[in-house]
Amino acid sequence: MNARNEHTLRWERDVAAWHEEADVVIVGLGSAGACAAIEAAEVGADVRVLERAGGGGGTSALSTGQIYLGGGTAIQTACGFEDSPDEMFRYLMATCGPEPDEAKIRLFCDESVAHCEWLVAHGVPFKASYYGEGSYTPTDDCLSYSGSELTHAYRDIARPAPRGHTVQQDGIEAGGQLMRSLIEAVEKTPARVDADIRCESLVVNQAGRVVGIAAVIEGRERLYRAHRGVILCAGGFIQNRDMVKYHAPWLARCKYRMGTDGDDGRGIRMGVSAGGEAIRMHTGCIVLPFTVPKGLLRGVMVNQYGQRFINEDAYQTAVGEAALVHHDGQVYLIVDNAIYERPFPPTEFAAVGETIEELERELGMPEKCLQNTLALYNAGAEKSEDTVFHKSSEHLQPLVEPPFGALDYRVEHSLWSVFTMGGLHTDTEGHVLTPDGQPVSGLYAAGRTTSGLAAQGYSSGLSIADATFFGRRAGRACALREG
Amino acid sequence: MNARNEHTLRWERDVAAWHEEADVVIVGLGSAGACAAIEAAEVGADVRVLERAGGGGGTSALSTGQIYLGGGTAIQTACGFEDSPDEMFRYLMATCGPEPDEAKIRLFCDESVAHCEWLVAHGVPFKASYYGEGSYTPTDDCLSYSGSELTHAYRDIARPAPRGHTVQQDGIEAGGQLMRSLIEAVEKTPARVDADIRCESLVVNQAGRVVGIAAVIEGRERLYRAHRGVILCAGGFIQNRDMVKYHAPWLARCKYRMGTDGDDGRGIRMGVSAGGEAIRMHTGCIVLPFTVPKGLLRGVMVNQYGQRFINEDAYQTAVGEAALVHHDGQVYLIVDNAIYERPFPPTEFAAVGETIEELERELGMPEKCLQNTLALYNAGAEKSEDTVFHKSSEHLQPLVEPPFGALDYRVEHSLWSVFTMGGLHTDTEGHVLTPDGQPVSGLYAAGRTTSGLAAQGYSSGLSIADATFFGRRAGRACALREG
Repeated sequence: MNARNEHTLRWERDVAAWHEEADVVIVGLGSAGACAAIEAAEVGADVRVLERAGGGGGTSALSTGQIYLGGGTAIQTACGFEDSPDEMFRYLMATCGPEPDEAKIRLFCDESVAHCEWLVAHGVPFKASYYGEGSYTPTDDCLSYSGSELTHAYRDIARPAPRGHTVQQDGIEAGGQLMRSLIEAVEKTPARVDADIRCESLVVNQAGRVVGIAAVIEGRERLYRAHRGVILCAGGFIQNRDMVKYHAPWLARCKYRMGTDGDDGRGIRMGVSAGGEAIRMHTGCIVLPFTVPKGLLRGVMVNQYGQRFINEDAYQTAVGEAALVHHDGQVYLIVDNAIYERPFPPTEFAAVGETIEELERELGMPEKCLQNTLALYNAGAEKSEDTVFHKSSEHLQPLVEPPFGALDYRVEHSLWSVFTMGGLHTDTEGHVLTPDGQPVSGLYAAGRTTSGLAAQGYSSGLSIADATFFGRRAGRACALREG
Repeated sequence: MNARNEHTLRWERDVAAWHEEADVVIVGLGSAGACAAIEAAEVGADVRVLERAGGGGGTSALSTGQIYLGGGTAIQTACGFEDSPDEMFRYLMATCGPEPDEAKIRLFCDESVAHCEWLVAHGVPFKASYYGEGSYTPTDDCLSYSGSELTHAYRDIARPAPRGHTVQQDGIEAGGQLMRSLIEAVEKTPARVDADIRCESLVVNQAGRVVGIAAVIEGRERLYRAHRGVILCAGGFIQNRDMVKYHAPWLARCKYRMGTDGDDGRGIRMGVSAGGEAIRMHTGCIVLPFTVPKGLLRGVMVNQYGQRFINEDAYQTAVGEAALVHHDGQVYLIVDNAIYERPFPPTEFAAVGETIEELERELGMPEKCLQNTLALYNAGAEKSEDTVFHKSSEHLQPLVEPPFGALDYRVEHSLWSVFTMGGLHTDTEGHVLTPDGQPVSGLYAAGRTTSGLAAQGYSSGLSIADATFFGRRAGRACALREG
């Protein structure tokens, strides 16, 4: 055990004997780990997957099973939507910033159609159908708009196309089906999965190369030698209080942390201990769930000063990010009697009033703030225009029918959900990079253990998209490495 | 040379022979390095300071020479201001968040009076006088308000006291005098300073302990053995484009990067390579220079939508942070003929108009946005109240005298200045910590190579305060370490 990294790094010279060995050792059997395992096994490597839980799935299994794909997939075409890698690239470069990873986005867009085919070939079911009522599909339909493609300013930057591809299954938790399919595909390869095993420390040799991993199973240590390398697919860090505190404290305010116990940042910490750099650690996917039913988009989102701050039809993660990071999570959706429908998930009124003036007073807002905002909004909506934030005209309707209400979407009172987006810096082949941009020999990573396609401005499906796409590339690169 | 950290880590076994040795090796002779050297030498250690430039000074020498001190310093008392460690603690805990380092803030407040005495005893000159016209003193006066102490909401959280202590020298660049004094104090000790030497890599032994450093002087490598440890006082990373891009891309938009060539993040990268964790890497001190002359605080700061977003008398770093991070750096200061004075630094008008309506149109803002904001502000100012953002009444005056103007403080058009606040995670003794919170054996750091007192919400003088205070502690801890 090494004093400087007591928990996350071990030296090979301290290893008396290895218990197990493989060409490629993969930490975690979520969507990244499964795809890495399949690719590595398919090119002939001897693969071992170490999963902390009783079975595979990870956070991907808890997700909506939506994957961001485009550029003209078979499903897009069958549903009558035109798309191209370049349009997709323009959209992602505009939304995923500031300073998104251009090399990853370029490659991902160019190979997105092929990646979709690969998923289908490996048993992931998609129905060739379009769902137009929102991002998440409660039906078994596939295609939906899962980002800000149709809205200001992105609709003018790139030709819109729906790119959310949800795995076929009734209900909004199709992630279970995704992972059943991928794990089945893993089982068809010679790759072996060990469950209930907790990886503790990378093992590094005297040249600084990662040569294995130390894990614990039923209280006993097991040392796995990795001839070609270790791939960290161990999830993010939303369940690690200290890491959230030191890197992105505002994320801790969201009630629902999307992640399993495994999202404790161990993968990132192991990678850092071996010399890797963690980047964009302040970023997260922040979902403010105010868009179901869709008619609520006709509401007016305001901050604690009664000011609007975004077009309400921007994607719910864009609204969530702006609301939490820039407006302290203190936001309300103003509705009138005409547009009100019961929100899902259920959301209380912070205040109601027969007039906007009364509502403003009930909310404890300074006089005239909310009144001015609504007067300006209504005057525009009368003419089907939103001169300030450019919400699409289909969602513009003057709010004039009493009573009025302020739905309470303050972060402490509403079911915001969140996961972390920062992680190890990797190149397009999944090599973990040092602060000087050099690969850490023998070390790869994918999924939320890494900083992926989106630095900010998350569109739904991007996380599983980069986990599966770059998981595959890491699996292949590691398997083909000189032994 | 080690494959995984080609540039920033070396192994002791690859060192054929050391060229030099000392108990304590300090990287960088800015204010942190100077104070570390003095303390280490004073407790009897053999100290070597390695400075990259031709002479010491670092970014501290380019600063205003202001140090945040309080709790009842001799100068505060002489000028008639009451203060206590607890009031200072309450203020810093409220401003330096979210999640500031409570242990560091507590210790710093408790020992601030003694630290001030130490600086004086080591030749740093302060005049026992108060300057009431702003944070930076163009005179040789000492004490000033250098934060948001007097303003909403902090004035209600802690009893205000001025805590900016500027070194005695005419002009606003008293940092030169600070560093002349500290370097003179270093020269009175047996510590030896080598200049024009660039530190490249930490040297680590087989137990993972830092045992020395590899440096380059006139193209030749010099290997320094450090019997007790290495202290990284090498500045921040504002001059490193890649690091800014990966960790805090918005900071790159500010025109004036406060830093020398040495602020290239090398100290942080060396620390990370040896197993240290870098935290709060997204944070920076962002100065929006709109407060001179002071009368401009009667202006109204608005974003691109004509909305106010902060009390304009909040400290200029708080305004800068809100403007850049939350409002995309697109802000204007609205003035009328009555309050206008020529700003320093010189600032252009983005637009002028005989009415607010005309000004709004000239700025290309949507109709009624700026008009509503000004109508609300003026109505309050008539009654000496700002019900929305609570600017102090002394700065409230209705803007009603034409012509009106919008001073252009957009980040691309104005002289915003910035430096990085993120860095290595250290404890109160300057030990560099791993992601698991363990000290990296033999490695210490201070100043902007570390994450210091302020996570956000910078008050002027805090950076040199923590550089000098925790620099001293690191010097002492390293010197007294078992050899």
